[in-house]
Amino acid sequence: MELGVGGSNPPCCTKTMSKEKNLKPSKELPLGFVDRQEKELLIRDFVISNIKEVMIKYGFQYLETPSFEYTDSIGKFLPDEDRPDQGVFSFKDEKKWLSLRYDLTAPLARYVAKNYLELPKPFKRYQLGTVWRNEKPGPGRFREFLQFDADYIGTNNLQADAELCILISEILEKCGLDKKDYKIKIWSRKITNLWMKKLNITSPIKIKIIQRAIDKMDRIGMDGVAQLLGKGRKDKSGDFTIGADLTKLQIKTLTEALSGQIQPENTEGWNELMEIKKIFSAYKFDNYELSPSLIRGLEYYTGPIFEVDLKFNIKNLKGQTIQFGSIGGGGRYDNLISNFGNFDCPATGISVGLDRLVFALMQKKDFNLKVSRPVIICVFNTVDIKEYVEILNNLRDSNISSEIYPGEGKLKKQMEYANKIESPVVVLYGDSEKTSGNVILKNMKTGNEVIIKKENLVNEIKKLL
Amino acid sequence: MELGVGGSNPPCCTKTMSKEKNLKPSKELPLGFVDRQEKELLIRDFVISNIKEVMIKYGFQYLETPSFEYTDSIGKFLPDEDRPDQGVFSFKDEKKWLSLRYDLTAPLARYVAKNYLELPKPFKRYQLGTVWRNEKPGPGRFREFLQFDADYIGTNNLQADAELCILISEILEKCGLDKKDYKIKIWSRKITNLWMKKLNITSPIKIKIIQRAIDKMDRIGMDGVAQLLGKGRKDKSGDFTIGADLTKLQIKTLTEALSGQIQPENTEGWNELMEIKKIFSAYKFDNYELSPSLIRGLEYYTGPIFEVDLKFNIKNLKGQTIQFGSIGGGGRYDNLISNFGNFDCPATGISVGLDRLVFALMQKKDFNLKVSRPVIICVFNTVDIKEYVEILNNLRDSNISSEIYPGEGKLKKQMEYANKIESPVVVLYGDSEKTSGNVILKNMKTGNEVIIKKENLVNEIKKLL
Repeated sequence: MELGVGGSNPPCCTKTMSKEKNLKPSKELPLGFVDRQEKELLIRDFVISNIKEVMIKYGFQYLETPSFEYTDSIGKFLPDEDRPDQGVFSFKDEKKWLSLRYDLTAPLARYVAKNYLELPKPFKRYQLGTVWRNEKPGPGRFREFLQFDADYIGTNNLQADAELCILISEILEKCGLDKKDYKIKIWSRKITNLWMKKLNITSPIKIKIIQRAIDKMDRIGMDGVAQLLGKGRKDKSGDFTIGADLTKLQIKTLTEALSGQIQPENTEGWNELMEIKKIFSAYKFDNYELSPSLIRGLEYYTGPIFEVDLKFNIKNLKGQTIQFGSIGGGGRYDNLISNFGNFDCPATGISVGLDRLVFALMQKKDFNLKVSRPVIICVFNTVDIKEYVEILNNLRDSNISSEIYPGEGKLKKQMEYANKIESPVVVLYGDSEKTSGNVILKNMKTGNEVIIKKENLVNEIKKLL
Repeated sequence: MELGVGGSNPPCCTKTMSKEKNLKPSKELPLGFVDRQEKELLIRDFVISNIKEVMIKYGFQYLETPSFEYTDSIGKFLPDEDRPDQGVFSFKDEKKWLSLRYDLTAPLARYVAKNYLELPKPFKRYQLGTVWRNEKPGPGRFREFLQFDADYIGTNNLQADAELCILISEILEKCGLDKKDYKIKIWSRKITNLWMKKLNITSPIKIKIIQRAIDKMDRIGMDGVAQLLGKGRKDKSGDFTIGADLTKLQIKTLTEALSGQIQPENTEGWNELMEIKKIFSAYKFDNYELSPSLIRGLEYYTGPIFEVDLKFNIKNLKGQTIQFGSIGGGGRYDNLISNFGNFDCPATGISVGLDRLVFALMQKKDFNLKVSRPVIICVFNTVDIKEYVEILNNLRDSNISSEIYPGEGKLKKQMEYANKIESPVVVLYGDSEKTSGNVILKNMKTGNEVIIKKENLVNEIKKLL
């Protein structure tokens, strides 16, 4: 695994460097990181407040673990850890290595192990937090994400797994999505593992190649998957991916299983799925589908797994129309926490990538999230600041977003500023208004000006907003 | 400067390490990092929602820059950069160094430089975000903080500086503090610099030693400062700090200036403070004081500086009663952004450490922030899950935090769980209740049980909550 560390010292250690060479520092962001603007942040706040409401209703506790953990606490559970570009950000701290968390599950496992005796059992917690992946940067690949996680710790009860799917659905619908806009896919890692056993496939590397092939079903279809289960597959660009080299019979059996032609009845995994179906039906929840090709990347899953798919179309970076696809998922991980100590601690959880969900919502719906832009009180140098502040305080006391023009300059510059920040209304109060006890309101959308009595200011502005 | 990087690879690179040695991973957190519990997080949410309301009212835009920046973009502006233990977390990324931000101001300067042509001028933005300091860990010293920043970019207008102090006051009072609980200190870096000039002190290192001495005024008093301006000072533990070695006359002049005996009238710095006082008075804001010993650590300040002090007493780690002190501050930094390019961009801003503010609020006030703990529906195996879900959905549809007991086990275990999570009410619905159409509600505070009709469930529980 490649990690974001190196052997030499960063340039800021040489204090005088920039000064000596007289170089300007970079104005650019490192690849994989972005600045986020107001509209996106307000939609994100809306999503987060919906999440918190649902979490309280469902009886989850709010927890926050820090960004950093000891590397050995979280290092073993990296997703896809054989992919060399899928790393973590790590630092040497005195003698031990620290890493920025790459998900919220590994830190939760550490937290539970640390506080095991004090915690209620089961323990239901949710968390919102940034996670980092030191991926090789590329277009549309980010290295910093905001995640929401909900987990049930210390229970084998499949109602926990079922409720995770149901609560995510409730959050999505609270955010304005319809039933047709999303679907929860479920399957069981136990069934996939059983297939491998029945086909006599035991090599962990081969199993991983097979899982990765199956995981591509939505994109390349059953024929493509069959090729990747065999010798390999050439994609449109001409790149060839070496396959799992299964026998024809193995491929036939597996593709039949993946297309649902072989029902894995009376197996543990299948019975658990049926139990979850029964719970869904008690909740009158039906927006899910059994999906034999569901894999989810993480190694630590031991039972039911689920994925949250958005079904509506968006345009990708190339301008092609594609289905939005997964925004998250999860599953049961009964052995992860017991890695830390000698106790049995079954668990199940779900994660949703909030940046992706927010992006999807921005594409899908017109939220009409009102972005409040301030009313601007223009400044004429001949009027005392006290009088501007009096007008300002009247507006702010009525909770109207407002400001006295915060710069210096003539009226023209002030109006340009008002236009730029999309101010709805500008207040003009110069010498003649002062004498007459009036105020001029300029509607910045229509350009219309009205003269009103100063004492009617708040009411007149409320009408315009 | 010592940075958190090193030459060897972290242990997670050797995939099999833990397995081979059969070592359990660490359950502990690295020093300087903490897990945060529900009560603290809910108070933090309350503070953040107050901040957002005030920011909208004052006409600020919401912005978020990422955690990482190129080191050279932010590396020159470290606070106290001569202190070797005050570092940043940095990584080598391909050929360039990246760092986790240590404040929100340096990334803002980068953002403004990058987007200079597109931004309104002035540009008012606020940000909430985590910052990291790779400090030498110690008791009560954290390496990860949540900060709130508000800045005015592109204006010389001192109303901006004044409003920063006023908006912070409004936020604190919205959070439940009284006027007597806090005070804004203001001063001007220009005056402090003028003193140095008048005393013929030009060495940057000596100036820094002097500034650090003055900065300790609140803790060690004028006598202590005078010692640090001279040969040095021995503290209670016997440790000796070498002083700035000023002459007696220099010390006399400086201590007189610091105690306000020499009014720096008719200087630029003083006139600016008087202008700010005038603006404060227009806003009827009087909860501030001029504080000649105010320093603030950052090198880049060029004019007015301010500090937000909490005036109430708390107990420190040793059990001693101390005044809470600073939770943040800021000032004018007219040259920071122009470091990035050939444009003039005066600016002023304020930062507040939210973890410290939340901690202070937890010490100061009983917030009565209601932590909703769920009603628990106990599970008797003889009753169908459908009926439990029906009860649950009735409660949740009325927005009552509730859950079916999420584990497995007998009633005794379920009641222990209800106690542990401080559930207010438990719902008991077994065979005999099913037959009679009743439900038993157990008040977990009093232990009282009442039998009610199933259809009255929601109303009866609302009465109990």
